[in-house]
Amino acid sequence: MDVKRRMNDRFKDLEGGLFSAVTKADVGEGVGNFLAAGGANMAWADPFYPDPSVPESAKKAMMEALESGTVSHYVMPIGDLALRKALAEKISRRTGLPIDPSRNVIVSPGSDSGLLFSMMPFIEEGDEIMIPDPSYPSNFLNAKLLGAKAVPVPLYEEDGYQPRMEEFEKRLTPKTKMVLISHPNNPTTTVFRKEKLEELAAFIVKNDLILVSDQAFEDHIYDGIEFAAPCTLPGMWERTLTVCSISKGLGLSGFRIGYIYADDHIMDVLYGAAVNVLGASNTLASIGAVAAVRDEAFLKSNYERLLRRRDLAYEILSEIPGVTMKPSESGILSWLNVSALGTSAEVADYIRDHANIMVNQGTPYGAQGEGHIRIVTACFANDEEAAGRFRDIKRALTELAKEKGIC
Amino acid sequence: MDVKRRMNDRFKDLEGGLFSAVTKADVGEGVGNFLAAGGANMAWADPFYPDPSVPESAKKAMMEALESGTVSHYVMPIGDLALRKALAEKISRRTGLPIDPSRNVIVSPGSDSGLLFSMMPFIEEGDEIMIPDPSYPSNFLNAKLLGAKAVPVPLYEEDGYQPRMEEFEKRLTPKTKMVLISHPNNPTTTVFRKEKLEELAAFIVKNDLILVSDQAFEDHIYDGIEFAAPCTLPGMWERTLTVCSISKGLGLSGFRIGYIYADDHIMDVLYGAAVNVLGASNTLASIGAVAAVRDEAFLKSNYERLLRRRDLAYEILSEIPGVTMKPSESGILSWLNVSALGTSAEVADYIRDHANIMVNQGTPYGAQGEGHIRIVTACFANDEEAAGRFRDIKRALTELAKEKGIC
Repeated sequence: MDVKRRMNDRFKDLEGGLFSAVTKADVGEGVGNFLAAGGANMAWADPFYPDPSVPESAKKAMMEALESGTVSHYVMPIGDLALRKALAEKISRRTGLPIDPSRNVIVSPGSDSGLLFSMMPFIEEGDEIMIPDPSYPSNFLNAKLLGAKAVPVPLYEEDGYQPRMEEFEKRLTPKTKMVLISHPNNPTTTVFRKEKLEELAAFIVKNDLILVSDQAFEDHIYDGIEFAAPCTLPGMWERTLTVCSISKGLGLSGFRIGYIYADDHIMDVLYGAAVNVLGASNTLASIGAVAAVRDEAFLKSNYERLLRRRDLAYEILSEIPGVTMKPSESGILSWLNVSALGTSAEVADYIRDHANIMVNQGTPYGAQGEGHIRIVTACFANDEEAAGRFRDIKRALTELAKEKGIC
Repeated sequence: MDVKRRMNDRFKDLEGGLFSAVTKADVGEGVGNFLAAGGANMAWADPFYPDPSVPESAKKAMMEALESGTVSHYVMPIGDLALRKALAEKISRRTGLPIDPSRNVIVSPGSDSGLLFSMMPFIEEGDEIMIPDPSYPSNFLNAKLLGAKAVPVPLYEEDGYQPRMEEFEKRLTPKTKMVLISHPNNPTTTVFRKEKLEELAAFIVKNDLILVSDQAFEDHIYDGIEFAAPCTLPGMWERTLTVCSISKGLGLSGFRIGYIYADDHIMDVLYGAAVNVLGASNTLASIGAVAAVRDEAFLKSNYERLLRRRDLAYEILSEIPGVTMKPSESGILSWLNVSALGTSAEVADYIRDHANIMVNQGTPYGAQGEGHIRIVTACFANDEEAAGRFRDIKRALTELAKEKGIC
């Protein structure tokens, strides 16, 4: 029996690496095998990976809870109330919005499932979703998995990857239902500027669209750039789902705690499907997350470490012949234009083969990702160790530049 | 703006309790509020709730991992390899099937999201899914959320809730795509007998259907009843997705570790969408789960405790005037026919109001659930405490029976 015959068109062509090689670093067993063979993974957006980074505050709260033995039990499918309270306070502080932990917040086991869940109530077969290109690969695939058409809207390097509204305007059709952004943008680290977001918001309101705003990287914005949450812009609260997590900002990816916040008319529907789509989030991690979210000293120290790391990455990587890049505007990533050295696949493979480091090809992030690579420059706790890897990459790509006659 | 106008028909009528009361015990804030007011929750399928029940083996492994501080980091979206190995061994031991941890197993953050994920690759708008009635409420709603039509297939109390094949046969249409069973069945605790499953398997193979078998309760089967995994029956391996968890069998609901096992042609597709649909499972819980799954002494002691509890529940609850029930065939639940006392809602409300205990109404489990209630009789670690609650329920319902003139 060919079981794919009974599958739908959304899923049946997916490949998980069992019958042919896949290049995405988060699919199948690929990274695991690479690590087992002694390689270094700088392809997962997981700050300080693989080194210790659980804050003492969370560790203490979790040790006590684990000792008590009651973390075997469920929290509510919409999320532990203490955690929703801590998150509501954080969101209110940041946005100025009055967030009710029992009406506006839902916890998800990581923001990936939260992202898909936030799209599910809206998407019908044939709907179109506008997605900036480049952006997070799942944004494009999620559209397909829900039966929609992903409509990539190019961002241009010469614009600093800020959106051009005419690119949205000219792709609008009667089937357009949603705009889906990662803000700050993954992989470019771009913080969409408030005036650009205001234009985008006006477009969304005018055309009666829904916005899903993936803000996984919102916690670390550099150089005094203003971060505006789209849900705070005129007319947007009632039509925006904001998806966040503690993976990047708190460096707690392994906890699998994400959250969505939105108007209660939207949230009522998510609450009604929570047990079906999400189940519930991990109880012990919820306890740790409450402590970490409230740990101001930890948040401050993480910010300082990541800012320092951003500078260090730029300092070393921007000197590579044939590479152009800008200092990252946010987060834990660096986005390199390597088009002078080869395709994104060629350059990533070269780094893998000559520096034993896995980085991300740019192409899974969209057509605009060709000629680029993404490096998770926040990997490794120790700056010197990270710098060593940056120099390994520099050394390898300098070789490649010589082969190409660039230097 | 009425945001529901932009939602699809699958989701827009869902209610999460924010604008009207909902009765399902896992929706919204309902149970939390009831607990905060001093009530007892025997409506969540969470063994020994709310008492300590993490085994020492898992606690020790988790303490060490937490102390190391590296549990902040991701495991692979398809699941931690050590956990997949432990699960593959368990599945192989139970089924006799050769299970490859890198080709046949995927870990999900609990079996709820695993259940939905296992259906997603197959379901197209308008497909029909045959679902025994009564069964787990999510089975029916999941069909709707994916755009399919749930086709309830009645099980009858007088058959001991074993399937009647003619009820399947007469509901078959060209749109039938899938059969979805909970086995053992939730809420009836029924272990579908091997000869019945063979008939069902023949029907599924003959009509080229897919089977999703939710086996969340498979770990505790009583009275020497044989448990057959449908995927082991002729022609079924290539078309069956088996969904399990450690929530019921190991009593570790709060860990949120579920898993799916299937043929690698199915699994390749699930691996390809894992990061989108699941994200990844919790790292620390994965470490704890490896220890718990391999802890034979813990599994044995849990089994003995739950068997004793099953007997205790039957002894007390079956004596209630107006109640008929059978000893549970499996798991942690008791299923009571209370139709002589009122509707399922009336009786559940009466228990809530007169015994301060939340139990499940039968109706969310399907039309055949009317006149029944489900009680999670494995709640509370201590048998005497549980017995006290059973007696509270008995006392309340005996009152009700008197009101109704039954005794």
